Amino acid sequence: MPRVVVSVMPKPEILDPQGKAVHGALARLGVTGVTDVRQGKRFELEVDGEVTDSRLAEIHDLAERLLSNPVIENYAVSVDPVETPSAAEPAATTGAPR
Amino acid sequence: MPRVVVSVMPKPEILDPQGKAVHGALARLGVTGVTDVRQGKRFELEVDGEVTDSRLAEIHDLAERLLSNPVIENYAVSVDPVETPSAAEPAATTGAPR
Repeated sequence: MPRVVVSVMPKPEILDPQGKAVHGALARLGVTGVTDVRQGKRFELEVDGEVTDSRLAEIHDLAERLLSNPVIENYAVSVDPVETPSAAEPAATTGAPR
Repeated sequence: MPRVVVSVMPKPEILDPQGKAVHGALARLGVTGVTDVRQGKRFELEVDGEVTDSRLAEIHDLAERLLSNPVIENYAVSVDPVETPSAAEPAATTGAPR
């Protein structure tokens, strides 16, 4: 079943206190080399059947009206058939114990 | 400046009330064909300099210890140089007015 991912992030000109808090924590943990952190949302939509252009257009519409606040957030839509953090089997880049 | 994206999602076996709420809203809005929605977090880390293997290993460690709760969440790390919702210039799939 194909999966469509909608990523919603605060616009660059909008303050992001959550990201700032994470960035501050990195500094306290001694991690260097990360100059900024921004935090947003990720929605994974399981789509029944094929992801057609009209289906994608519908999801774009949803992303704009329901999943994001266009005043302060941007969104991106991508079709993501395989590698996601929800995948049952950990792939190379997922959070399996190392 | 390269950007590393950490996606954090609830594990498949964990209930996701936020995703369920969005899924219910879709049904009320008359959207069909979406069988499930799960909501997670997306972190965009701006990295100073090149994304080396050791830098990536450090970010994996951060993702596991700071950005996710490994009891209930999986994470994925990806290096994402261009297309993100925070990009100032909207690309084909970002949330520009259509």
